[in-house]
Amino acid sequence: MIDTPSLVDQYCHGVLRTELGLGTFEAHLGGTGGPPAPGTTFFDTQTGFAVRRWCPPLLGLEPHCPPARYLARRRELGVLESGRRLLRATGISTYLVDTGLPGDLTSVPETAAAGMADAHEIVRLELLAEQVADTSGTVDAFLANLAEAVHGAADSAVALTSVAALRHCASVAPEPPGPGEVRGAAGRWLDGRTVGGRLTDPVLLGHLLWIAVAAGRPLQIHVGVGDPLPLTGFAAATAGLGTDLVLLHGYPYHRHAAHLASVFPHVYADVGPALARTGAGAAAVLAETLEHAPFGKLLFASGSRGLPELHVVGARIFREALERVLGGWVRDGAWCRADAQRVAGMIAAGNARRVYGLAG
Amino acid sequence: MIDTPSLVDQYCHGVLRTELGLGTFEAHLGGTGGPPAPGTTFFDTQTGFAVRRWCPPLLGLEPHCPPARYLARRRELGVLESGRRLLRATGISTYLVDTGLPGDLTSVPETAAAGMADAHEIVRLELLAEQVADTSGTVDAFLANLAEAVHGAADSAVALTSVAALRHCASVAPEPPGPGEVRGAAGRWLDGRTVGGRLTDPVLLGHLLWIAVAAGRPLQIHVGVGDPLPLTGFAAATAGLGTDLVLLHGYPYHRHAAHLASVFPHVYADVGPALARTGAGAAAVLAETLEHAPFGKLLFASGSRGLPELHVVGARIFREALERVLGGWVRDGAWCRADAQRVAGMIAAGNARRVYGLAG
Amino acid sequence: MIDTPSLVDQYCHGVLRTELGLGTFEAHLGGTGGPPAPGTTFFDTQTGFAVRRWCPPLLGLEPHCPPARYLARRRELGVLESGRRLLRATGISTYLVDTGLPGDLTSVPETAAAGMADAHEIVRLELLAEQVADTSGTVDAFLANLAEAVHGAADSAVALTSVAALRHCASVAPEPPGPGEVRGAAGRWLDGRTVGGRLTDPVLLGHLLWIAVAAGRPLQIHVGVGDPLPLTGFAAATAGLGTDLVLLHGYPYHRHAAHLASVFPHVYADVGPALARTGAGAAAVLAETLEHAPFGKLLFASGSRGLPELHVVGARIFREALERVLGGWVRDGAWCRADAQRVAGMIAAGNARRVYGLAG
Repeated sequence: MIDTPSLVDQYCHGVLRTELGLGTFEAHLGGTGGPPAPGTTFFDTQTGFAVRRWCPPLLGLEPHCPPARYLARRRELGVLESGRRLLRATGISTYLVDTGLPGDLTSVPETAAAGMADAHEIVRLELLAEQVADTSGTVDAFLANLAEAVHGAADSAVALTSVAALRHCASVAPEPPGPGEVRGAAGRWLDGRTVGGRLTDPVLLGHLLWIAVAAGRPLQIHVGVGDPLPLTGFAAATAGLGTDLVLLHGYPYHRHAAHLASVFPHVYADVGPALARTGAGAAAVLAETLEHAPFGKLLFASGSRGLPELHVVGARIFREALERVLGGWVRDGAWCRADAQRVAGMIAAGNARRVYGLAG
Repeated sequence: MIDTPSLVDQYCHGVLRTELGLGTFEAHLGGTGGPPAPGTTFFDTQTGFAVRRWCPPLLGLEPHCPPARYLARRRELGVLESGRRLLRATGISTYLVDTGLPGDLTSVPETAAAGMADAHEIVRLELLAEQVADTSGTVDAFLANLAEAVHGAADSAVALTSVAALRHCASVAPEPPGPGEVRGAAGRWLDGRTVGGRLTDPVLLGHLLWIAVAAGRPLQIHVGVGDPLPLTGFAAATAGLGTDLVLLHGYPYHRHAAHLASVFPHVYADVGPALARTGAGAAAVLAETLEHAPFGKLLFASGSRGLPELHVVGARIFREALERVLGGWVRDGAWCRADAQRVAGMIAAGNARRVYGLAG
Repeated sequence: MIDTPSLVDQYCHGVLRTELGLGTFEAHLGGTGGPPAPGTTFFDTQTGFAVRRWCPPLLGLEPHCPPARYLARRRELGVLESGRRLLRATGISTYLVDTGLPGDLTSVPETAAAGMADAHEIVRLELLAEQVADTSGTVDAFLANLAEAVHGAADSAVALTSVAALRHCASVAPEPPGPGEVRGAAGRWLDGRTVGGRLTDPVLLGHLLWIAVAAGRPLQIHVGVGDPLPLTGFAAATAGLGTDLVLLHGYPYHRHAAHLASVFPHVYADVGPALARTGAGAAAVLAETLEHAPFGKLLFASGSRGLPELHVVGARIFREALERVLGGWVRDGAWCRADAQRVAGMIAAGNARRVYGLAG
C-alpha cells in the first residue's frame, strides 16, 4: 500500500567477483570473520532465512530452498549473471559505495554496471591515512599529505567515513587534538609501522576526524555497539560547523542515534543495516528508529558487503518493514496516506539526495 | 474497551500566553531550542503528525490538515480560546506544573482555569537555588537560605524536581557532599556568578539533591538520555529515608527506569512524555515500560511545555496506547478485564493521587 | 501451530519445601527481597498476573482468581502435592539447578522427583569459594583447595555459574590477575572474614572466573542490568580457549547479549527469565533476542526460584511467545514452517543438549 520509490543506498560495499562455495558464502552471512560455533550454521540466522526467502526466486528457484541447492544454481548461472540478476532486483537506483574494504570486490563503476544504477564513492578515512603513511617519509610530509588527501577525497567523493573513531573514545573528544600532540602521535605511529599497518591511535584518529569535519563533505561515522555517550559530545562540538554527520550502524543503540538526530540539526542516522540483520523482526527496529527522529533525518542504507544477496535482503526487508510500519499507522488512522507516502520517499531516497547533493 | 478515568498529569508546564506564528509553533514542536535542519521541518515528526491528527478537530477542522491552515484557525480563535478548547479536551483533571521554565507561560492557577481542572506547583530546585543566590550576600547566608527555601518549597509545593543533577554524575553520588566541600563550591560559584547565573556545579547540585531528599516531598529526577548506572547508586543510597523518587523522561532508558522501580520500593517512573514524542509508535514504548515495573509504580505525565497541543497529544496518545496494550492483553486472555481496568486507573491517576497525597 | 518439544530448563533453582502464607508468596513474586511500596503489591506485576492466569487451573480453580483463594487452595493440597502438580505441568523434562541459593529449597534429586524429570547440578562459584574459605586455614591452602574444588565441580556438575563477577568490572578484566595480586587479595579477604562471609573482592572473583574458564565446563555468567561493555572484553579474551560462556539474565541488555552471541562462537545467551518477568509482553522481548543471535546460540531457561509457579509461568510464557513470534513469521511468509519448527526445538531443548552434553 505504501509505494516506495527507487532507493538510494547511502552505504554499502561492492560484491565479490569470485565464485563462492557453501562455506565462503556462509562466512559472509555471519559477517564476523569467524567460524560458526560447533553444531551451528550462519544460515540459521535472520539474515540466512531472509536470503533463503527472497533470493532463490530471483534465480528461478522456490523460496526457502536448501542452501546447497541455491549455491548450486548460483554457480550454474555464474557469479556475474547471478550478481546482475540479484542487484537489478533490489530497486536500488543509486549506490554509495565504501571502497575501503579489502577483498576482491567490484569497483564503483562495476557495481553501477552490474546493478544498472548510479554509483558514487565513499572514502574511508583510516585507509586513506594508511595509504598516505605508506608513501610519506617524514612526520611533516605525512601530516601535509594527509590534509591534502582528505581535502582531495572531499572534492571527488560523495562522502567520507570513519570506522574506527568511535572504538577509541579519545578520538571523538569535543576538541581537535593540539598540533604537538598530533605530531608526537604521528611520529610514534610512523616509527613503529610497517607498510600496510593499521591506524588505531586515538590522537591520530581524532585528528583525521577533525580534518574531515573541516573538509565539508558529509561524514559517516560507524557507531558500533558501544556506549553512545561520547558521540553526544562530538555531535555537540561539531554543531554549526557546516558538516553533516551521518551515524551508521547504531544498533542496538539505534534509539540513541535517532535521538541525536532529533537534537542536532547536522546529525542524521541510517536505517537499514540493522533491519537486514533482523530479518523477520525488522518492523520493530524500524518503528523504534521512527520514534524520535525527525523523518527528514533518516537515510536508507543496506550496509551490505560482498554478497549481492545482502543488497537484495537489505532492500526487500526495508521496503517490507516500511510498508508494515507506515501502512499500519495509516490503517490505524494515526497518519494520513499522503504523509506516509511522502515520508517513505524521504527515507528511501529524498533525504539522501538532499544531504549528498545527488541529482533527483 | 479500557475506560480510562480522568488523568492526573504529574509533570507538565504552563502554556504560552502569546499568539504564535508558524515558525514559533514549529520550534516548540521540535523541543530542542534549535532550528530544524535545512530542507526539513519539525512538523515531520511523530509529535507533529500527532498534533495534526488530534488537534484540528478540536478547533473545528479536519484531522491532518496542513499546518498553516491550523495555525490560521488558531489565531482566528485567539490564544486564550484555543488554549481553553484544547486543554479542556485532554481529559486531565489535575495538573502538576513545574514552574521553573522561563518564557511567558501560564501560572499554576491560570493553567487550572484554562483547563477547568485542579493544578499544583512543582518547584524546580536549580531555579530555587539560583534565586536564593541572587539575594544572598555571603556563603553562610546562601547555604542557610537555601536550606530554608527548599524546606519552604516542600511545605507549599506538591513535589520538588531536579533537571540538572543527572547531567553531572558526581551530584548523584551515594553520599551527600561534606560541609567543607559544599562551602568551598558555594564560595567559588557565588564569586564567579552574576545575577541569573545558572547552577551547574556538581557539588552544589548534589548538596541540593540531598537537602531535597531530607525535605520529604516526592522528588522528581529528570533522567535524560545518559547512562542510568549512577541513578542506581543514588536510588540505593536513598532507600528507606522516607522520600519517594520519581524518575522522569527516562527514554531511551525507560526499561532501566522501570526496572529500578521494580527493585526499590521508593522509586517510581513516569509514563507519557516518551509516548507523546513517539506518537504512532507509542504502544511499543508503553508495553516496554510495563514489562518489569510493578503497576503501582508508574505515573502518567504529559511532560508538555508551551503548547496546549502537547497536553492534548500527551493525553490522547497515552489513552490510546493504554487501550491498545492493555486491551490487547485482555483480548489475548493474558489479563482479565477487571485487572486491566484497575491497572489503567492506577497509572492514569490513582498512583499519582497516592504518591502526592492528592484528593481523589 | 509451532509444536514445542519438552523443554530443557538450563537455569533454575529448587522450590520451597515449606507451606507459604500470602505475604511470603508475594515476596517471592517480587524477587527483590524487599517489601512492596506502601499501597502496592507484587501481585500487580506481569509475573503476578501470569501466575494468576496459568496456575489456578492446574490446582482446579478458574484463571485470574484472587490471590487469597489461590493460596488457600494451595495450602489445602499441601506444598508437596501442589508442587508436583505445578512442576509436572511445565513440559520441562530436564532441569539444570543452581544449588547455590540459601533457603529451604528442594535438592537436585528432589526437584527431579517432584517434576518427574531429569535434573543436573549447576555449581555456583562464589558459594564454592566461600565454602572453601570456611575450611582453609592459610592462603596457600585456600588457593590450592579452591583450584581443586572448581575442577572437582567441573567434573561432577553440568555447568558452573558466577553471579557476582559482572558486578565488579575489574573481575572480568581481559587477563587473569597475577599470582601475587591473587595471594594479596586472598590474604586480606581471609583475614577480615568470619565463617560464611561473602566473596565480593574483584581480584578473587576474577581469579575464580579464570579458574572456571580453565576447567572447561560451560560457564554461566549472570549479566545483570549493568553496562555490557566489560563483558565484550571478557568474551574476546576467552575466545578460542574451549570453554563456552552462557550469558544469563541480560535484560534490559538482552540485545547486547544476543549480539555477543552472534560475534563470538563460544558465547551463548539465555531466553526465558526476562520473558517470565515480562508476562503478557514477552513476545516483544523474545523477538528482540531473535534479532541478531544465531538460532543455535539461544537456550531456554526459566530462571525461577522458590515457587513452582515460577517454573510454570517461565515455561508457559516461553512457549506462548515462541508460538506467537515464530508462528507469526510463518503466517507472514517470512519463514517456512519447517524452519520455524526446527528453530523452536533448538531453543527449547536442542541447543542446551548440545552445549551441556545432555542425552537427547
